[in-house]
Amino acid sequence: MSSTFGTVFKVTTFGESHCAGVGVVVDGCPSRLPLVEADIQRQLDRRRPGQSRLSTDRDEADSVTILSGTESGLTLGTPIALLVPNKDQRPTDYASMQQVPRPSHADYTYQIKYGIRAASGGGRSSARETIARVAAGAVAEKLLRERFGVEIVAWVGAVGDVDAPDVDVLTVNRAGVDRFDVRCPHAESAERMMAEIARVKAAKDSVGGVVACVCRNVPAGLGEPVFGKTEALLAQAMLSIPATKGFEIGSGFSGARMLGSRHNDPFVPKDGRLGTLTNRSGGVQGGITNGEPIVFRVAFKPPATIGRAQDTVDFVGTPVTLEARGRHDPCVVPRAVPIVESMAALVLADLALIQSMRQ
Amino acid sequence: MSSTFGTVFKVTTFGESHCAGVGVVVDGCPSRLPLVEADIQRQLDRRRPGQSRLSTDRDEADSVTILSGTESGLTLGTPIALLVPNKDQRPTDYASMQQVPRPSHADYTYQIKYGIRAASGGGRSSARETIARVAAGAVAEKLLRERFGVEIVAWVGAVGDVDAPDVDVLTVNRAGVDRFDVRCPHAESAERMMAEIARVKAAKDSVGGVVACVCRNVPAGLGEPVFGKTEALLAQAMLSIPATKGFEIGSGFSGARMLGSRHNDPFVPKDGRLGTLTNRSGGVQGGITNGEPIVFRVAFKPPATIGRAQDTVDFVGTPVTLEARGRHDPCVVPRAVPIVESMAALVLADLALIQSMRQ
Amino acid sequence: MSSTFGTVFKVTTFGESHCAGVGVVVDGCPSRLPLVEADIQRQLDRRRPGQSRLSTDRDEADSVTILSGTESGLTLGTPIALLVPNKDQRPTDYASMQQVPRPSHADYTYQIKYGIRAASGGGRSSARETIARVAAGAVAEKLLRERFGVEIVAWVGAVGDVDAPDVDVLTVNRAGVDRFDVRCPHAESAERMMAEIARVKAAKDSVGGVVACVCRNVPAGLGEPVFGKTEALLAQAMLSIPATKGFEIGSGFSGARMLGSRHNDPFVPKDGRLGTLTNRSGGVQGGITNGEPIVFRVAFKPPATIGRAQDTVDFVGTPVTLEARGRHDPCVVPRAVPIVESMAALVLADLALIQSMRQ
Amino acid sequence: MSSTFGTVFKVTTFGESHCAGVGVVVDGCPSRLPLVEADIQRQLDRRRPGQSRLSTDRDEADSVTILSGTESGLTLGTPIALLVPNKDQRPTDYASMQQVPRPSHADYTYQIKYGIRAASGGGRSSARETIARVAAGAVAEKLLRERFGVEIVAWVGAVGDVDAPDVDVLTVNRAGVDRFDVRCPHAESAERMMAEIARVKAAKDSVGGVVACVCRNVPAGLGEPVFGKTEALLAQAMLSIPATKGFEIGSGFSGARMLGSRHNDPFVPKDGRLGTLTNRSGGVQGGITNGEPIVFRVAFKPPATIGRAQDTVDFVGTPVTLEARGRHDPCVVPRAVPIVESMAALVLADLALIQSMRQ
Repeated sequence: MSSTFGTVFKVTTFGESHCAGVGVVVDGCPSRLPLVEADIQRQLDRRRPGQSRLSTDRDEADSVTILSGTESGLTLGTPIALLVPNKDQRPTDYASMQQVPRPSHADYTYQIKYGIRAASGGGRSSARETIARVAAGAVAEKLLRERFGVEIVAWVGAVGDVDAPDVDVLTVNRAGVDRFDVRCPHAESAERMMAEIARVKAAKDSVGGVVACVCRNVPAGLGEPVFGKTEALLAQAMLSIPATKGFEIGSGFSGARMLGSRHNDPFVPKDGRLGTLTNRSGGVQGGITNGEPIVFRVAFKPPATIGRAQDTVDFVGTPVTLEARGRHDPCVVPRAVPIVESMAALVLADLALIQSMRQ
Repeated sequence: MSSTFGTVFKVTTFGESHCAGVGVVVDGCPSRLPLVEADIQRQLDRRRPGQSRLSTDRDEADSVTILSGTESGLTLGTPIALLVPNKDQRPTDYASMQQVPRPSHADYTYQIKYGIRAASGGGRSSARETIARVAAGAVAEKLLRERFGVEIVAWVGAVGDVDAPDVDVLTVNRAGVDRFDVRCPHAESAERMMAEIARVKAAKDSVGGVVACVCRNVPAGLGEPVFGKTEALLAQAMLSIPATKGFEIGSGFSGARMLGSRHNDPFVPKDGRLGTLTNRSGGVQGGITNGEPIVFRVAFKPPATIGRAQDTVDFVGTPVTLEARGRHDPCVVPRAVPIVESMAALVLADLALIQSMRQ
Repeated sequence: MSSTFGTVFKVTTFGESHCAGVGVVVDGCPSRLPLVEADIQRQLDRRRPGQSRLSTDRDEADSVTILSGTESGLTLGTPIALLVPNKDQRPTDYASMQQVPRPSHADYTYQIKYGIRAASGGGRSSARETIARVAAGAVAEKLLRERFGVEIVAWVGAVGDVDAPDVDVLTVNRAGVDRFDVRCPHAESAERMMAEIARVKAAKDSVGGVVACVCRNVPAGLGEPVFGKTEALLAQAMLSIPATKGFEIGSGFSGARMLGSRHNDPFVPKDGRLGTLTNRSGGVQGGITNGEPIVFRVAFKPPATIGRAQDTVDFVGTPVTLEARGRHDPCVVPRAVPIVESMAALVLADLALIQSMRQ
Repeated sequence: MSSTFGTVFKVTTFGESHCAGVGVVVDGCPSRLPLVEADIQRQLDRRRPGQSRLSTDRDEADSVTILSGTESGLTLGTPIALLVPNKDQRPTDYASMQQVPRPSHADYTYQIKYGIRAASGGGRSSARETIARVAAGAVAEKLLRERFGVEIVAWVGAVGDVDAPDVDVLTVNRAGVDRFDVRCPHAESAERMMAEIARVKAAKDSVGGVVACVCRNVPAGLGEPVFGKTEALLAQAMLSIPATKGFEIGSGFSGARMLGSRHNDPFVPKDGRLGTLTNRSGGVQGGITNGEPIVFRVAFKPPATIGRAQDTVDFVGTPVTLEARGRHDPCVVPRAVPIVESMAALVLADLALIQSMRQ
C-alpha cells in the first residue's frame, strides 16, 4: 500500500532480495524527454555495492532495462517501467539467521505485520529495494535538469565522529564527491573517514554517518502549503530510506538554539529577483522554495548486521548468541549518496510539475 | 492541493488568518466513537496563545463547533467537519508590513507562487492554520485511545541552549508537562527555560527550541514498508508544522555517531511478546512499529517576527529597516506541544486503521 | 473515506440532513480567479426544492457562505471552504420510518455498514449532500469558463416514457432549459413531461427520467489514458449522484447495435484543427477529448419515497405496510440538472489543470 | 498519471504494443494468499485473441511471470509485479496508417495530448493494455473468492441487434459462458450472434455489443458513500476499458422509464438477513452493497479498425481514403468478458479490504 510516491510524477516500486527482480513504474513523466538506459545506469552504478574496498564484496551488476514508456530514445508520456533483475541471490547466507530475528533489523516487525517473511528476512526493508528508487530518481533528475536546470549533489558529511567541515554548497559537484571512495569532497576528512571505516570493519563492527545534499537552481514557488511543504516531502522521502534516523533542513537542529535576530535571512536583490543574504531557511520559506539552494542533511544509523557476536533471543524468546556470516557493509553512507539524490529528485520533479499547472 | 493528509483516516484543512474561520474535515473516522466538542476543545485550549506570560497577549478564544458527522455524541462514520471561527482579526497590525516581505516569513514565497497574498502575509503558513490540525488530531487521539489504548505525550525538550535532561518516556504525562507554562516536565529546566524566554522577550528577540514526543502502547505491526514507513510519515507530519527545521527518531543524529555493536537493540521477552532491551530504534524497525514506545524530537526555529529592527529590502529591492509592531511569540515551542501530539495522532490513526484491514 | 473527488482540483464534502450544515472544501483552485458567493448561489438556487409545482413543497433557502480561500473577491490559491447551513430540518417527519428500512433507500445498507444511522435514515445518501457538489461545481465551472471558455449545459431528456427529441447540442443553453419548470428545452416535450409528473404525483407515485448534458469548447487533449479516461471519470462522477442507474457517452448503448462503418467518426478540417464529421464518440477518443462537444446521458430511477402503501419488512423481518408521510419529489430529474452540470465541471476542471502541466 | 487504480488494493499498469512488455504492480494484496502463475494465466488465456474463428488470427501467447511479491506460492504482502512480454509485434502492419489518424481511434488525441505517438498509434489505448488489467484482476478475484466467497461471471448479452434473453444471474457460470466462442450462455442466441459476427467479418465491417456481469456473494456493506459508491467505481472501471460507451446497473436506463411503486425493491427475510424480493437496485443501495447479486451491463462500440474503405483526412487535413490492412477483430465483446470480470474484481477487492477495517 505504500510503494507509491508522488502525486503527478508518481513512482511505484516492487521487488525484494530473492525474487526475479527489483523495479519501478514511473507514471506522469512528460513526453519527449530524451531517455535511454545509460541515463539510469550511471546512478545505479554509483549505488552498487562492490565498488570499493569500503563496501561489501558482492559484485552485483545491477543492469537496468526500460520495459515501456519510451520509443527511439524519447519518452512517450506513458508509464516508464524499469526492471533490474536479481542475479546473485545466495539465500543460504541468510538462512541460518531465520530462526532468530536480527536485532535492529525488520525480521521481527515483518513477521508481526504479515505473518510471513521473505527468505531474506525483512522483505521490502532490504537495501536492494533502493535500486528502484535510484532508477526512478535518475528519470526525475533528467527531467529536472533538462526542463528546469536543477542540479542535485549529495555527499558524505560525517562518518561516526569524523565530521567534514562545511562544504561550499554553491560549487560542490559529483566529480568532486566521487574522487574518494567515501564520497566526501573534502580530502583530509575523506582520508580520516576511510580510516575509520577500515578500523570498524576490522573490528567486525559498523558505523553510522550523515549524508548532506544541495539542490541548486530550483525555481522559486515550488512546494505546496500545509501538508505538502517542500521540507515535509523531503523529510518523508529521506526517512523512507532504510537505516535513516533523522532529517534537518537549513539551520536544522542547530537552528533551535539560535535567536531570531541571528536566524532570520534578510532579503537582498540577486540577479533581478529577491534572494537572501544568509540561507538558514535552507531554500524554503513557509514550505515553498525561495530560489536559494535547498540544503539538508540525513542521519544514518550504523548497519544492523555486524560480524561481532550479539546476545539476543529467538522468535520464541530463547536466548541465543548471533554472529552474522553473510557479507555486509560496515558503513552505508557512501552508497547512500545517490539514494539521497534520487529521493530529492523525486520530490522536486513532482513539485515542479504541480507548480507548472499554475502558470 | 496539499491540504489533505492521510490515506484512510483522512483530514482536509482550510482557513487563513482573516477569513471567516479555520476548520477541517475528518473523513474515514469509524462510526460509534463517542465524540463531543469538549473532546476537541481541550487540546485547542492548550494550543491557544494568551495562556501565559510566555506567549503572545492575544486572547483568541478558539471555540470549536462540530458541523457534521456526529449525532447524539457518537460518530456516524460520515465526514466530521469542525469549524473554529476567526474572531480577533485586527488586520491593521500587519498592514504596514505588506510592502516588505518579512525575512524568513512566507510573504515572498506566497507572492511568487500565487501572484497574490492574503492580508496576513503568508496565507496558509500562518500559525492559525494549526488550529485545524489540533482539532483533527483530537479526534484521532480519541480513536487511538479508545480503540487501541495509545497514549501520546509531547513536551519541550529544549529552549535555545537550555536542554532538559532525559525525560522518562514510560511515565511522562500531560499533567506533568502542563505543570509549567513552558511545558517542560523537569522543574529545574522549566525554570531556566522560562527565564531564557523572558530574557529574549525583553530583548525584543525570539528563540528556537525542541519538542520531544513519546507514543506509548502503539500496537506492533503498524506502518507500511517503503514510502509509508512510520518514521517517514511522522517526519512529513512534523516538518509540515510551521517553523520546524528537523526531525529525528530514536537515536536520531546522535545514532549516526555510534557503532552498530552499541546501537543495535537486542531482543528480550516482554509480557508474552518480544521487546527490545534498549530503544535506539525509537519504536520502529524497517518502518514498522515493534511495540516499544515511539520516541522522536522536532526542531523549531526561532519565530521570524521580532521587535528588533532588521535590515532587508522591499518587494522591489529597495533597502528598508523593518520593525514588527504586532503581537508575537518570543518562543513557539510550548504552544507547539499539542500540535506535535496532534500530528502524531493523525499518522498513527491512519496506520492503525490501515493495519486493521490485514487481520 | 470517499468524500474526496479529484486529483489536483480536489473537493471534499461533508454534512448530512440534520446536522449544522452541508459544505465542501475546494483545494487546488488556482489563485486570482474572481469568485463571490453570488457565483455559487445561482446554481444552488437551481438545485433547491420548492422552486415549482413539480417538486417538493419544502422551502429550503440554501444560502452559501465562503468561509475561506478568497479575499476581495479573488481566490488566494488556498482551500475554498463553502458552507450551507441546514435550516428546515423537521426530523420528526422521518422518525416513524426509522423502525422500517425504506425499500430502495439506503437505510438498511447504512445500518449494515456503520452499525448506526443518522436520524434521516440514509445519512450521506440524502439529497442534501448534493448541495456540496453544486457549490463546488460552481467554482469549477467559473474556472473552466474564464480560463478555457468551456460551456456546460444539461437538460431533461426524458421523464418516464416521455422522451424529448434530439436537442441541438451546439446551441442549447441554460436560459432555454430553464424556460420550463421541468427543464426540457423542447416546449412540446416539456408540456408532456410536466403532465406526466403531475399525473404521477396525484397517484402518490414517482417516476424516473434521463438527464442529458453537453460540454462545449473543451480543449482537445484532456483526459488521462487507462483509468483516468475522460468518460471513466464522468461515469464515476455521474453514478456517484444519488438515484442514478446508468451513464452513456456519445452513441452509448445504441452504439453497441451499430456497425463500425457507420459508427466511425471521419475526420474533417475544422477551424484550423481536425474535427469529426459525426460525433458518435461523444467528444472523446481513447479517453482523451478531441475538441468536439462532450455529450452524455444519465439515467435516474424513480424516487424511492412514495406516498403509496408498500409491503415490506422491518429491521427484524416482520412484515409491515409502509406509507411515506414526509414531503417528497415525484421526479428528481429537473433538480438533477445542475447537479449533473456540477459533476461534469468537477471532472473537467481537474483534467484541464492536469493537462496544463504538460504544456 | 492515471495508470493507478484503487485505494488499498492498488494496481499500477504499464506497457504499450511495441515495447518490451505489458505488466502491472499489485500493491496492497494481503499476505499468505496462495498465488501462482497458473491462477493468472487462466484469465489471460480467455482474453487472448486467436482463440476462435470469431476473433483476429494473431496467436499471441501471452505468458505471465510473477516478478515479485510471492515466495513458495504464497503472497508476502509486498507488491506483486506481473509481466507479460510482447512477442509478436509486427509494427509494419500499422506503419502505413501513421500519416493518417484512424477515425474513432486515439491516434489524433494522443498526438494532441503528448506531441508524440507510439508506433502503434494510440499508445496506451491499445487493446494490449488490457492484459495488465486481466492479470491484476486474477489476483483480486483469487482474494475475493478465497476470503469472501465472491463469484464473478460476465457474458455477452448482445452482439449488434442480437440480444440474449435474460440470463439467470443466480446460476450462470463460466463453464456455461465458455461453451460457445461468442461467450453467450444461451445456445440459440449464441448461434445467432456467431452468425452475425461472421456476416460482419465477411463484409469487412465490425459490430458492437453488450457485456453483462453478475457478482454473487458480495458481502453487504461494501462501497463508500458519495464519490466512492460501488456503482460509481464500477462505472469508472468499466468506462476505462477501451471501446466502452455505456454502463448501467440493476434496472439501468430502463429504470428511468419506471414508476417508483414498481421499481422499489421490497425487503424480505432471507437466510437470517434482510434481502429484497426484486433486484432493480442491482445489489447496491445508496452506493453500498446490500447482499443481493450485483448486476450490471457495459456497452461496447464496434471496433474502429475495419477493412472497408473510409473517407477521412490526414494529419494536415488532406482528404484520403483509408483501408485497414492489419488483422483486426470484427467484434470485441467475447474477449471483453474476462476484462469486465477483472475490472469488477479490482473494484470489489478494494472495497472489501476498505470495509474490513471497520470491523
